[in-house]
Amino acid sequence: MGIDMKLIVKNYDIDASEPTVLLHDNDCLEIGVKENDRVSITGSRSAVALVSRSDTLVEEGTVMMPAALLERCGVTDGGEVNVVYCQNPDSVRSIRRKMDGEKLSKEEIESIVTDILNNKLSKIEISAWLTALYINGMDIDEIADFTKAMANTGDIIEFERQPVFDFHSLGGVPGNKITPIVVSIVAAAGIMIPKLSSRAISSACGTSDFVETFCNVEMDADSLKRVSEEVGGVFAWGGAMNLAPVDDMVIKIEHPLGINPRAQMLASIMSKKVAVGATHLLVDIPTGSGTKVPTIEVARAYARDLMDLGEKLDMHVECAITYADQPVGNAVGPNLEARECIRILEGNKHPASVVEKACDCAGIILEMAGIPNGSARAREILDSGEAHKKFMEIVVAQGGRPDLKSDDLVPGQYSEDIIATKSGYIHSIHNKDVVAIAKAAGAPNDKGAGLMIYLKKGQRVEAGEKLFTIYADNEAKLRRARETAMKYPPMDIEGMLIKRVSSVPVR
Amino acid sequence: MGIDMKLIVKNYDIDASEPTVLLHDNDCLEIGVKENDRVSITGSRSAVALVSRSDTLVEEGTVMMPAALLERCGVTDGGEVNVVYCQNPDSVRSIRRKMDGEKLSKEEIESIVTDILNNKLSKIEISAWLTALYINGMDIDEIADFTKAMANTGDIIEFERQPVFDFHSLGGVPGNKITPIVVSIVAAAGIMIPKLSSRAISSACGTSDFVETFCNVEMDADSLKRVSEEVGGVFAWGGAMNLAPVDDMVIKIEHPLGINPRAQMLASIMSKKVAVGATHLLVDIPTGSGTKVPTIEVARAYARDLMDLGEKLDMHVECAITYADQPVGNAVGPNLEARECIRILEGNKHPASVVEKACDCAGIILEMAGIPNGSARAREILDSGEAHKKFMEIVVAQGGRPDLKSDDLVPGQYSEDIIATKSGYIHSIHNKDVVAIAKAAGAPNDKGAGLMIYLKKGQRVEAGEKLFTIYADNEAKLRRARETAMKYPPMDIEGMLIKRVSSVPVR
Repeated sequence: MGIDMKLIVKNYDIDASEPTVLLHDNDCLEIGVKENDRVSITGSRSAVALVSRSDTLVEEGTVMMPAALLERCGVTDGGEVNVVYCQNPDSVRSIRRKMDGEKLSKEEIESIVTDILNNKLSKIEISAWLTALYINGMDIDEIADFTKAMANTGDIIEFERQPVFDFHSLGGVPGNKITPIVVSIVAAAGIMIPKLSSRAISSACGTSDFVETFCNVEMDADSLKRVSEEVGGVFAWGGAMNLAPVDDMVIKIEHPLGINPRAQMLASIMSKKVAVGATHLLVDIPTGSGTKVPTIEVARAYARDLMDLGEKLDMHVECAITYADQPVGNAVGPNLEARECIRILEGNKHPASVVEKACDCAGIILEMAGIPNGSARAREILDSGEAHKKFMEIVVAQGGRPDLKSDDLVPGQYSEDIIATKSGYIHSIHNKDVVAIAKAAGAPNDKGAGLMIYLKKGQRVEAGEKLFTIYADNEAKLRRARETAMKYPPMDIEGMLIKRVSSVPVR
Repeated sequence: MGIDMKLIVKNYDIDASEPTVLLHDNDCLEIGVKENDRVSITGSRSAVALVSRSDTLVEEGTVMMPAALLERCGVTDGGEVNVVYCQNPDSVRSIRRKMDGEKLSKEEIESIVTDILNNKLSKIEISAWLTALYINGMDIDEIADFTKAMANTGDIIEFERQPVFDFHSLGGVPGNKITPIVVSIVAAAGIMIPKLSSRAISSACGTSDFVETFCNVEMDADSLKRVSEEVGGVFAWGGAMNLAPVDDMVIKIEHPLGINPRAQMLASIMSKKVAVGATHLLVDIPTGSGTKVPTIEVARAYARDLMDLGEKLDMHVECAITYADQPVGNAVGPNLEARECIRILEGNKHPASVVEKACDCAGIILEMAGIPNGSARAREILDSGEAHKKFMEIVVAQGGRPDLKSDDLVPGQYSEDIIATKSGYIHSIHNKDVVAIAKAAGAPNDKGAGLMIYLKKGQRVEAGEKLFTIYADNEAKLRRARETAMKYPPMDIEGMLIKRVSSVPVR
């Protein structure tokens, strides 16, 4: 990946999230502080900052402070402040207990979570926390406490109308545009499902990234309540609400380490469900190579964890382990996925992989609500047009056009077909390469960018036939996406001969 | 602890050790970078920086860069740079392998160590590394590779004269002023011992802190070689030389976490011994409550590790487990310790705890060099005045006065006696409280600051008798030290009755 970019330079002074002051070595000895200790600095107001020491960059008797901190201490350049050693927060001791493999109490977990939220823990400390969590883990009681503590860092929505159903996908599979279909079917069945989605983190297109091509996804908590209770469902963006906000702060530290500790991941998912007041939750666990969940065994372990955690949180949780060895459906990218999704709601029976996954997931939710033969009933609701009617109600409630049609969603005007150079069977489609190509084409920011994939695993292709088309909103990105596709071909084509076993012994 | 301090404020822009640039969210999507990813920034030159994202603090099309980074990229405010995603160093993958409990190869360990040295790893990554080391540890082969990699980050001193003896104390016990005595005895016996010491890290007085009261401790590698080869020994400060410099960078991250992973600690000690070319090493392991090594069992484990590591490094290592339940000798603080140390070299037989520990340690080194009955021989060298003669040679070689006398070292002019309020036996002396009082009095920066302790464990004290005297160079610090002593009394006095056992059953 990686495009380079020309930018205009501005000098600045940094980073209110982790304010650091520079003190002379001798003053540090005097005050009794070491590098990365904390000091409390008092001008007309007080603030806490981390210490960086030097015997060259700063004069004795001077403290160098970034502008944002000057402001917070109510002091100006050349003024005087009082500087005194400030103990580490108690939560640092709890982090150390997790390093030692101890079980943490509810209070300890709460204090870590609130100290992260309030910028009281440094990057060093949060990194140690996540590493300790990654290595030593948490038991299900700790994860339940962790989930509640994270939920309590933000708003908790309380619906008058009960029960509250929710749906979540662990993600990791491109083209997974089922959410608006599932929500529409479920809401059409009279079950309230205030579904909040996310934008892409590492993927090419999050649910909110394609839903916002046809309606507004930013919604505050009041609108969420009102629309859900009146219409029965939404497909909005969670990020506009203040739900478990600490999660975003943790992601920033997890990401460069390339880790997602199980406890953190489970608490992250479930805290948002607690915050939205969910009483019933279906979790889709896409499973297959190139996703977060490579095997059925791993998927089962996640399912077990999620259901155990649901029990601790008084939430009825069920899980659907779904096939994710290749993209779901044919379209990847905002407009393309929106079009494919709406076409199905309009009555199109293809791609079957999307229709079936949506009906199966919606069906489980119907059964959780006491409706028998859920999947068949879901299919009826979809086929009868009830789902489309409900979908349009939600779209309009979210500020979309009442005459929305799937064909309103158009792919990018720059496109290129990728052609099979040999005949054979599609042996595999690599999710990661599909995502890389779509991102290179500009997804999810460029709404027209993405791929249409014409052939799926196991299908026969003839040399010269189209494998997929790349779409982009401008030529440079189309070129970049094509280069990515050449470098990382997303499809393997093979003859059906997997391996020739010879009876002649190897010499 | 913790004194507060008035300082003049200067606005600044931060921190060349971990340069961070601020980019707009949309530009980040375009470039394909997330928070705490790296970008390569090219003006007339290139540099790598970490990414911080915002959609409010920075305009689209703009990169905000601290002044030091502008300089390194050869660009000025308002100029243009090229910004492109830059992969994490490979060492991040090795850090993750250590998180997963894997054994790292020599090459992986080297790359982590050099990337830390060259500021290529962020605080987040170094913190994760140390946490993983703390939890998952290293086997002795890895620690040997780690030791060599750390040594190779700096200069390696090669002595013409061989063998090279060295001495190290794990520290943690106040008043441990034996180093100049040990070095003087050993060098007087014709054995070369180029001993490098440190300043206080968390203690009240490191060896270099009191040695510098009577001679210069800053010495470059050439002087170290010359003086050691001519005179037979030094007691200089290691910090003036470029020996295993990566260690200081790691300490800054370890310190706020309050951890010292075994592998890091062993490699840290041994890398400096490798760098100084030691062929023979005695390690003093002070053991007792309130030190780094609480029990004999833990001390034995450290000794085993150090000797195994010595074998891998082709270094003859022996260990002395020493008693450290209370301060060594009576004096704590720079001038006070220097005076007590020099008095012993001048012929004073007290305090016996210092004399005996010094002769026992020197004796082991003599035996390592093939001299029988080491301890007795060391005592002869001390009693005969040969050690004092050698001591004065070293002092003069380090720029000290040839007429140096112990009484040249005077305690601070402000003092206060602390009196026993009841009669009884000294039941315990708390090292940590002794250190806290000496630091409150101004040690190690104020050379006259410290304590003289008159009574040790098990001795009888009468009400009204002096327990210890606090010395300081100014009144405010004397007051602060007294307050510390009142709050954290360093001595427990008890009647000899430990517990009364009654035959009357408890109701």
